[in-house]
Amino acid sequence: MTTAEDRIARIALTWLTEPGTWTVHRLVDELGPAATLELLRDGGAPDGPLRATVAARTGAGDPRAVAEKALARADRLGARLVTPSDPEWPTQVGDLRRLALTGSGRRVDRDTAPPLCFWVRGAWPLAEALDRSVAVVGARAATGYGVHVATDLGYGLAERGWTVVSGGAFGIDAAAHRGTLTAGGVTVAVLACGVDRPYPVGNTALFDRIAETGLLISEWLPGAEPFRPRFLIRNRVIAAATRGSVLVEASARSGATQTLRRAAGLRRPAMVVPGPVTSALSVGAHELLREEPHTRLVTGVAHVVEEVGRIGSDLAPPARGPERPTDHLDDEATMLLESMPRRGVTGLDAIAARAGVAARTALRKLALLEQLGMVVRRAEGYALAPPPTRR
Amino acid sequence: MTTAEDRIARIALTWLTEPGTWTVHRLVDELGPAATLELLRDGGAPDGPLRATVAARTGAGDPRAVAEKALARADRLGARLVTPSDPEWPTQVGDLRRLALTGSGRRVDRDTAPPLCFWVRGAWPLAEALDRSVAVVGARAATGYGVHVATDLGYGLAERGWTVVSGGAFGIDAAAHRGTLTAGGVTVAVLACGVDRPYPVGNTALFDRIAETGLLISEWLPGAEPFRPRFLIRNRVIAAATRGSVLVEASARSGATQTLRRAAGLRRPAMVVPGPVTSALSVGAHELLREEPHTRLVTGVAHVVEEVGRIGSDLAPPARGPERPTDHLDDEATMLLESMPRRGVTGLDAIAARAGVAARTALRKLALLEQLGMVVRRAEGYALAPPPTRR
Repeated sequence: MTTAEDRIARIALTWLTEPGTWTVHRLVDELGPAATLELLRDGGAPDGPLRATVAARTGAGDPRAVAEKALARADRLGARLVTPSDPEWPTQVGDLRRLALTGSGRRVDRDTAPPLCFWVRGAWPLAEALDRSVAVVGARAATGYGVHVATDLGYGLAERGWTVVSGGAFGIDAAAHRGTLTAGGVTVAVLACGVDRPYPVGNTALFDRIAETGLLISEWLPGAEPFRPRFLIRNRVIAAATRGSVLVEASARSGATQTLRRAAGLRRPAMVVPGPVTSALSVGAHELLREEPHTRLVTGVAHVVEEVGRIGSDLAPPARGPERPTDHLDDEATMLLESMPRRGVTGLDAIAARAGVAARTALRKLALLEQLGMVVRRAEGYALAPPPTRR
Repeated sequence: MTTAEDRIARIALTWLTEPGTWTVHRLVDELGPAATLELLRDGGAPDGPLRATVAARTGAGDPRAVAEKALARADRLGARLVTPSDPEWPTQVGDLRRLALTGSGRRVDRDTAPPLCFWVRGAWPLAEALDRSVAVVGARAATGYGVHVATDLGYGLAERGWTVVSGGAFGIDAAAHRGTLTAGGVTVAVLACGVDRPYPVGNTALFDRIAETGLLISEWLPGAEPFRPRFLIRNRVIAAATRGSVLVEASARSGATQTLRRAAGLRRPAMVVPGPVTSALSVGAHELLREEPHTRLVTGVAHVVEEVGRIGSDLAPPARGPERPTDHLDDEATMLLESMPRRGVTGLDAIAARAGVAARTALRKLALLEQLGMVVRRAEGYALAPPPTRR
């Protein structure tokens, strides 16, 4: 079989059976794409649903002819086909082979086989663009909070040299893409329709910018329409192409939470940004954190990079409040300081008694506090030092 | 030893050594309070720091005389002393015996012994008020978001018959108390100073309302001042007196996070409400959720009651988006529905081909969709039914 035959067969199979179908994937593994295509066209699909699907599609055209037309259309458009035999194939999507999902048994949870091919618009070699990449996904009806957080993540990841992958949708997806573009980074939109007609149309200007500096990619043929189930089938690629996925906002029933479950199923970092519990757009995020044991709460780019980066090189600094001069005092010194009235001078014995510290110890500690500028000594005893004047 | 002697000795020991001191607790367990008091007064404390503390305090007065005066003062005020021999003693605070803290080794993490006695203002028997109780704690400099959430939690817990325990501070504590009072519930403020001078003074009206319908309690003698270390020593009681603790807002370095760590150390539910990652007042909450494996994310009263309630009786309903009529369709029907153009009539074969469904199956499913009112049949094919008109 020539490479050209292999490519045509992969396109034809994608069109004939929809991406992600396990039966097709297993046949291709065993027989190769061209023989699989012959088998299916001859009515030899090993299961009834697949046979019905193939029969229905074949009625609408010859699969090879459809594939040839798609290649020509892509060529006119400046798009290219990438298959597993190409050097730019992102091999990590093959990890979908071991994706174990515990779910509803619905089609979107069953059809998780690795892609047969990708259509690509943009100059970057696909594997290179996706090598150090993080997915940032979330709700379309995002709030100002979610848009802010996703934009920040996109920007921060780009600054640190990470590619940001998302689905090109309104809301969180668009914010993540835009944040990345603003920082001059590489962003990849994984579409659920043809790369020649990215959906939604309202993001056309954004898609054009992504194609210029990043990549638009899709499993579906040029011209393919974005039917709703395709978004969910597509999500497995977002999870499998990246080193980890971050969910920013999601309502209780959101496709974005599926992407996170797929990332967790692939044992890739599945990260969730929490939000106000008063927001319906954070319900899905919090449910994931409560119910899915492999998700991890992250609050910003430092945490994300810590999860996806190499161990030891990308650790987030611990959260700290402002340092206080009293932080380093021992318990007795703290008690003495706390026991002194705000105003006025107090005798050594009185301070020691209030603090529950022996007088000799109190004398020593108060001398230290004086040296630290926290206490001033007077003839009759000690007083708190005035607070430092601000400049 | 008479009960009166036991009580005087417990008060005197609290004054002489500060609450929570393990050495004192062990001596009281072994010798009883009166003999422990004698031993300490005679300079027989088994360790140097305790000996120094006792020596310093003894200089300020006779412990028994101080105790007698405190009892008289409490009596005038309408407050009472509760000790382990009283029927209203909350035995659960004894669980502090097995509190295992991994921490800095600072005094507040060492001095976690059970209380010797409580001063109580309010009509409720202490054990009864605390039997079904939850702690709600958090930042003093709370945001509007935190105050809203804490008020809601206080209200909702009161509605479900739970007592709300907090520390009486500004911010989250006050909001939790107020929410509970608004719902006509029982709330308990655990103070770090005398019950006759609850701190902060700005919450005086709130403390008066709490004393009328709930309880003000403290380990410290009437008249005791709220030195800062006392708040942290006090926090162990908030964790130990309740069935679980909820943190609403906390900055990176907050005493409230210590209460949660104590609850976790006692193997009681340690619950944390997340917030916007853009808020400094949620940093401590998110750090707890990330770093403390025994904390649990909660988003509202239903989750809290699920954690602290009896198994099987208080379960939170799962988060769900609004139910959609298409939720119950099978994959083929969904694909058919998704494949139909928004407008206009499409022939059976075209719909079947686009959906990848066999024509015979499509016919059957479309008939079902028609019966469900989702599709209308026309002479030339099928069209999507118009959306239902809203009333």
